[in-house]
Amino acid sequence: MSVLKVAILGFGTVGEGVYTTIQSHAEELTAVLGKKVEVAAVLIKNKQKERNIRSEVLITSDYEEILQLPQLDLVVEAIVGKEPTFTFLQKAIKRGCHIITANKEMFANHGKELLKLADEYKVAVGFEATVGGGIPIIQTLRQLLKINRVQQVQGIVNGTSNFILTEMREKQQSFAAALKLAQENGYAEADPTNDVEGFDAFYKLMILSRIAFGEEPNWNDVEIEGITSITSELIEIAEKLGLRFKHIASASKIGSQVKGSVSPVLVSKSHPFYHVEGVENAINVHSDIVGRITLQGPGAGMFPTASAVIEDLVYVCQSRSSEANNSQTSQAASGQKKKRPNEFWLVHNLQKNYLNPLISWIDQVGEETFIINADKKDILQLANQNNPLLVYSIIDGYQSTNLNKPESLSVSL
Amino acid sequence: MSVLKVAILGFGTVGEGVYTTIQSHAEELTAVLGKKVEVAAVLIKNKQKERNIRSEVLITSDYEEILQLPQLDLVVEAIVGKEPTFTFLQKAIKRGCHIITANKEMFANHGKELLKLADEYKVAVGFEATVGGGIPIIQTLRQLLKINRVQQVQGIVNGTSNFILTEMREKQQSFAAALKLAQENGYAEADPTNDVEGFDAFYKLMILSRIAFGEEPNWNDVEIEGITSITSELIEIAEKLGLRFKHIASASKIGSQVKGSVSPVLVSKSHPFYHVEGVENAINVHSDIVGRITLQGPGAGMFPTASAVIEDLVYVCQSRSSEANNSQTSQAASGQKKKRPNEFWLVHNLQKNYLNPLISWIDQVGEETFIINADKKDILQLANQNNPLLVYSIIDGYQSTNLNKPESLSVSL
Repeated sequence: MSVLKVAILGFGTVGEGVYTTIQSHAEELTAVLGKKVEVAAVLIKNKQKERNIRSEVLITSDYEEILQLPQLDLVVEAIVGKEPTFTFLQKAIKRGCHIITANKEMFANHGKELLKLADEYKVAVGFEATVGGGIPIIQTLRQLLKINRVQQVQGIVNGTSNFILTEMREKQQSFAAALKLAQENGYAEADPTNDVEGFDAFYKLMILSRIAFGEEPNWNDVEIEGITSITSELIEIAEKLGLRFKHIASASKIGSQVKGSVSPVLVSKSHPFYHVEGVENAINVHSDIVGRITLQGPGAGMFPTASAVIEDLVYVCQSRSSEANNSQTSQAASGQKKKRPNEFWLVHNLQKNYLNPLISWIDQVGEETFIINADKKDILQLANQNNPLLVYSIIDGYQSTNLNKPESLSVSL
Repeated sequence: MSVLKVAILGFGTVGEGVYTTIQSHAEELTAVLGKKVEVAAVLIKNKQKERNIRSEVLITSDYEEILQLPQLDLVVEAIVGKEPTFTFLQKAIKRGCHIITANKEMFANHGKELLKLADEYKVAVGFEATVGGGIPIIQTLRQLLKINRVQQVQGIVNGTSNFILTEMREKQQSFAAALKLAQENGYAEADPTNDVEGFDAFYKLMILSRIAFGEEPNWNDVEIEGITSITSELIEIAEKLGLRFKHIASASKIGSQVKGSVSPVLVSKSHPFYHVEGVENAINVHSDIVGRITLQGPGAGMFPTASAVIEDLVYVCQSRSSEANNSQTSQAASGQKKKRPNEFWLVHNLQKNYLNPLISWIDQVGEETFIINADKKDILQLANQNNPLLVYSIIDGYQSTNLNKPESLSVSL
């Protein structure tokens, strides 16, 4: 029986999960691929550390040694950061290897170049593990896109932020205390910037957008806002209104343009994200024929992510050619006009005298906290006048709980 | 350019949705398949009825006329009932056509025979539309199963029942009133038996089970219970406990045996089904590597179902051969031992004097309503002694809200 030789770059959570799964599911892999999958090499940083790896596997900190193996079919990359991984993967492609990556930062930055290079060398690129851990979102999008025209992709794609928001709400904790707990549980890094400031979600959104729309928003036009502005007080106000803060990355096609945003928003009970708690991830796809479907599952962790990598391994080996990389079939320019999705906002730190005829006041829900109905551009103007104003979109609309008519509030103008 | 000729059997909601989508997404279909998709014929019952079908399409109530078309590549079946559809599809396969069905009752009963016959004639069978409407559950399961070993599939797969339960809870309505509303909205048939008694969910479960485990439970061993026993009173009690009734079809592999059940159960807030409301469907897959993932979306309706059929069309035409039918790759006997999933129960119509040392009383939540912790077999014994006892499983456990220790309740034994 022929053998598929794999190198794993990095032996952290993901790398080890992939290694273990290849051993534990050897029988299934052989059944599906018609060949034996064998880990030939593991690239590590620290040669001293003790690892549970079979003795016949080359363990090295020198990538060149791996590239010089007599047979190498597939390179799985499970390191973090843009470099040296991008260089490593370029070399692997030029060596004729399929590649699979779990590295969203690198892939968001260099995915396009890698896909192009892989096309040239007739190898395939798998990147299911870059978004949503074990949730098979990339394949589902590919499947849907065969015929559906996607209008919007929305996701809770950063488990750390979702965990912190859940802890803050459920246990009335401060952001700092919830972050500390996330760090203690291994859900957040010592430096949590990438997660809590929205960068991790941004990278994932760019990857989703490329699949869903065949293109990305202009990176500089995407507002990236993390969860650090959210206080226990705001969470409590939202809870009283039947709303919850969720950190949502969203990309939509409006006319021929793709727009993106990464920010905390408020969702109501009827939204499928309302109940996505802790480190779970969820992704919503709105498309023209099927409507809205939601996928929910573990967004990270050793085995969920390993599962995504192994599914890529099967996909990449079965398709074998560059056609695996076609992130999108030629989507006809859809040109549907979208309704403005967000019209209601929760604004905090606002005095009533900062009023504006373009803004409808719906409810006063705290001393300086209001629900308003307005265009985004008018809100931005307000924000400029009145810093530090906090503004959160309420998605899926808002049902006033206040008996005062909206008019009675805006009359005071 | 070559042409793919399609016949659509039935022109109800699904048939018309498929017809319309083939017209509206012609460009995408051609791009994906490299050929033009053309509806050549539509089988209808009533020739008098006015329909919006192009004049070049053969519209007939005589299936033989369709079979005699000079070119026919694919038959889409969107009728209800086991016959004559099963016979129609056998004939289509023998004519060398791929087939796609949206008919769960027929497919649950005759799927195995159709798949075998299709294998023989080297054509493919698509049945994504039989379960979960637009939710791509069949393809997702196939994808997961390439490597994962599925342990359990659970679903809210009957939108009618879920709509009724939601209405009863939200508007404090009786079962009869909620059913009437479902009928008025077109969510329930004039004869709602198939939906509210659990048969529709049962058929879908059998199809899911065949994909997930390569086999079905023994049909006679599957308890099928609908939602007709659920009263407003019970819903109110559940709501006070933070639980909700959901009608869940579930299949698990326990050792080498596949077990199934279709019944109303109680779920807590932490379960992803708690928040699945109205006609939405949701399906949960537990598998060994990835853990639990949930798919949620529209379970029925013209376009969601049409989307599933069209995705099948692409799948069937791209795979072209009988390998499309392999519902499952050879799953190694997994033999994992499963924890008993359901240990807590809500029982109604029970007097305290019907006690049993094998049953732990956890809470009294209504005059004759208790939460108990017990083995299923002991409950069944209790039910035999004391009819008409209503028993509902609480999945994912139960947190007592009662300050009395469980012991203090069982002391009275």
